[in-house]
Amino acid sequence: MKAEILTIGDEILIGQITNTNSVWIAQQLNMAGIRVSHMASVADDEKAIAEAFDSAAKRADLVLITGGLGPTKDDITKLTFSNYFNAALEINKDVLEDVTRFFTQRGKEITEINRKQALIPNGCVVIRNANGTAPGMWMQKDKTIFISMPGVPYEMKAMVTDFILPKLEREYTLDHIYHKTVLTTGIGESVLAELIEKWEDNLASKNIKLAYLPQPGMVRLRLSSYGNNQEALKQNIEEEIKNLIPLIEKYFYGFENYGEENNNLEQEVSRLLRERNKTVALAESCTGGYISSLFTAIPGASDVFKGAVVPYTNEAKHTLLEVDKNVFATTGAVSKECVEQLAENVLKKFNSDYAIAVSGIAGPSGGSAEKPVGLVWIAVADKNGITAQRFQFGDNRQRNIIMSAAGALNMLRKLILTEAF
Amino acid sequence: MKAEILTIGDEILIGQITNTNSVWIAQQLNMAGIRVSHMASVADDEKAIAEAFDSAAKRADLVLITGGLGPTKDDITKLTFSNYFNAALEINKDVLEDVTRFFTQRGKEITEINRKQALIPNGCVVIRNANGTAPGMWMQKDKTIFISMPGVPYEMKAMVTDFILPKLEREYTLDHIYHKTVLTTGIGESVLAELIEKWEDNLASKNIKLAYLPQPGMVRLRLSSYGNNQEALKQNIEEEIKNLIPLIEKYFYGFENYGEENNNLEQEVSRLLRERNKTVALAESCTGGYISSLFTAIPGASDVFKGAVVPYTNEAKHTLLEVDKNVFATTGAVSKECVEQLAENVLKKFNSDYAIAVSGIAGPSGGSAEKPVGLVWIAVADKNGITAQRFQFGDNRQRNIIMSAAGALNMLRKLILTEAF
Repeated sequence: MKAEILTIGDEILIGQITNTNSVWIAQQLNMAGIRVSHMASVADDEKAIAEAFDSAAKRADLVLITGGLGPTKDDITKLTFSNYFNAALEINKDVLEDVTRFFTQRGKEITEINRKQALIPNGCVVIRNANGTAPGMWMQKDKTIFISMPGVPYEMKAMVTDFILPKLEREYTLDHIYHKTVLTTGIGESVLAELIEKWEDNLASKNIKLAYLPQPGMVRLRLSSYGNNQEALKQNIEEEIKNLIPLIEKYFYGFENYGEENNNLEQEVSRLLRERNKTVALAESCTGGYISSLFTAIPGASDVFKGAVVPYTNEAKHTLLEVDKNVFATTGAVSKECVEQLAENVLKKFNSDYAIAVSGIAGPSGGSAEKPVGLVWIAVADKNGITAQRFQFGDNRQRNIIMSAAGALNMLRKLILTEAF
Repeated sequence: MKAEILTIGDEILIGQITNTNSVWIAQQLNMAGIRVSHMASVADDEKAIAEAFDSAAKRADLVLITGGLGPTKDDITKLTFSNYFNAALEINKDVLEDVTRFFTQRGKEITEINRKQALIPNGCVVIRNANGTAPGMWMQKDKTIFISMPGVPYEMKAMVTDFILPKLEREYTLDHIYHKTVLTTGIGESVLAELIEKWEDNLASKNIKLAYLPQPGMVRLRLSSYGNNQEALKQNIEEEIKNLIPLIEKYFYGFENYGEENNNLEQEVSRLLRERNKTVALAESCTGGYISSLFTAIPGASDVFKGAVVPYTNEAKHTLLEVDKNVFATTGAVSKECVEQLAENVLKKFNSDYAIAVSGIAGPSGGSAEKPVGLVWIAVADKNGITAQRFQFGDNRQRNIIMSAAGALNMLRKLILTEAF
C-alpha cells in the first residue's frame, strides 16, 4: 500500500508553523508497513486542494489529509470534500451528540458554529473525535482512500491510532518495512563514508538502502529494507549491522528505536544511568536549562535525574554553587576552573552519582579575542574525580547550545562506561 | 512570482526528521514578497524527483529544492539535475578551490568523495557554499527557475540570504505581502470566533484573509493581504487590527513579528522585563528546565534572566530552596504551599525582581485519585507578595510541560503589567 500525506493550511505555506503532523503520521504508517512516497502542503483554497487530490489519486492507494477542519471560516476542507466527491453535507446524529457532549461536559453552551461541525458529506465513514469537535472523514474514490483529519495534533493522533490503522490492518494486507539506525558521535559525515565505503558498496546487492543523517554533534546511519517477509528483512539488516559495528567502533554509541522522536544521546545516557541505578545533576550556564529539559522530557526522568541549577550570572554561580569569587577575577566564568568547581559542588548539593557542568559563550554577543563566541568549557564529575574539556563551536547561538549539550552528554556517557557495571 | 519548495530525502518520508528547512525558506520568500503556493517532499529517487520537477514547472516560476547534495552515495539530486536538464557534469574550478580550502583550513586531506563535489551540471549558475562543501545550483528551464541547495540548514540559509534573494530582487519585480499576527491567551478558538464574528465577516471586502492558529495555551490570529502597494496593504491591515483589539482586550497580549520563530510569551515577558530593567529567576520542578531554556534561547537573555533551579526531588527542594520538610508530609510537593515557598526562596537566592515556581505531575505516571496527572501548581512572586494558581491539564507529558510554561509565563506577564512603569 502506497500512501501520501497532504497538509492543508496557509500557516504551513507562509512558514508560520512547522509541519510536525506529517512526521508523526509517516512514522506510524511506516511501522504499520505502509510506505509513504510523497508529502505535500497546499493552501486553504478549494482549487489547490482539489488539484492535490487529483495528483495524489493518480499515484497513491491512500491519502491522509490534515487541517482545514476547524469551526472557523478559514477552514474549507470539508466543503472541498463535499464538492470533490459530489456528496451533500448532512447532519450526522452521532457527531452532533459528540459535539454537544463535548461542550456540556465543560459547562459550556454549544454554539451555532460548533453545531455545523456535525455536517458530514453523504457517504463518508465518520471518524469520531474523542478529543475535540471536528470529526474525521473516510471516503473512497475509485481505488484511492481519502481520509481527512483535524490539524490539532492530539486529535489527529488519536484518530490514526484508534481508528484508521486498525481499520487498514483489518481490511488490507500490508507490506513490511524494516529500518534500523546506527548512532555515531565524534566523526564527520565524509570521513565516516570513507571508513565504511567497501561495506556500503555491498548493500545494494542485499536490497538494503543506506542514508547518512548528520546533525550537530552526531551522524546517524539508517539502514532500510522493504519486502514481504518481516523476519527475513530483519535478519538481513541485523547481519549487515554486525559487519558495520567493528568498522566504526570508536564512534558508535547505540541504536535508534524507529518511531521514537528525539531518540538521542540523552536517552542513551538515561538508559545507562537507569540500568546502573545511578543519578545525575547539572550545572548549566550557557546551555540555560536545555540539557535539563532534554532529560526531563523523558517519562520517568525522576528515577535518574535529581535536578539542575542554571546559574546564569556570576553572582548565582557563587551564591548557589559556591564558585570561588577569585575565579571570576582571574580565569573568568568560562574556564576549566569554573566548570570544575560547578561540577564538584552540584554533585554535592544534589547528592547525585554524576554531575555535568557547562559554561560558555553562546553568542551572538559576549565574545572577545581571547574568548570568542562558541567557546565552551564542560566538566563531568563523579565520586572519583572531575574531567574538563574545552570546545570551540561556531557563531550560531542555537547551534552552540545544541552542540554543548551533545558534547556534555557524550562526556558523561564515556565516563559512565569507564566504570565497572 | 509564485514559488514552490521541494524537499528531497527519504528521512522526511519515513518521518525520521522534521522538515524545518521548508518553514524557514517560506518565511524568507514571504518577507521578500514571493508567495509560496505548494510544498512537497519526495524520496531520494530519480524518477520521483523528475516527476516533482515536471509538476512544479507547470505551476510555478521558482522552485527551491533542498537535500540530496551530500557527498555520500544516497544523495542523487545532482545526478538528477544533470539528467533532467540534459547537462553534463564538469569540474568547476572555483568550487574545487572552495572544497580544497575547506579541508586545508581544518588541517585535513581532501578525499576523493569530496573532490567529486566540484562536479557541476553544465550551464548552471553555481552558488558557492561558505559553510560546507556541497555547492548550490541555479538552472532555468523555460520560464521556471530551479535552485538546488544542500539540506544542512545553516549552509542552505547562507545561500538563500547571501545569494538567492539578492539575485531575485535584482532581476525581478516582486509582489508585496503583509502579514500581522495578533496573540491571545486564555480563550479557546470557537469562543474567540463568536466574539469577533461580525468583524471577521467584514474582512473579505477588504481583501484581508484571517487565520486562527491554536496551540497549547494560546490562539494566534493572522491577518494577511497581498497586492502591489506595500504601504496600502499595511494601512489596510493596521486599521482592521485597531477595530479588533477592543473586542478581545481581555485576551490580547501582543503581536508576532512575522518571520521570527517562537515569537511567543517568553519573548513578550522578556521584552517587558527588559524595558523595565527587571530580572526573573525560576524554580522549575515538573517543567524540568523547559521555561529556563525558553528564556535562554533568546539572545541577550542574561539582561533579564538570573537563572533557575530545577529541584526534581523533594530532597533538592529542601536542600537548594529550603522548602519546609513538613510540606512534603502534609500537602505534598504538588501544592500551593510548596510553590509559594519555592517562589519566595528562589527570589531571595537569585536576588531577582520576579520569580516563577512550578510543581506538578507531568505524567504519564505519578498521578493519584486526589492528584491526577496534569495537576500543576504555579506561583509568581515579587517583593510585594506571592500569587499561586492551580491548573488541571491532561494526560500528555509533553503537552503538560508546554501548557505549564504558557500558564506560568502568562501569570508573570500579568503580574508585571499590574505594576507601575
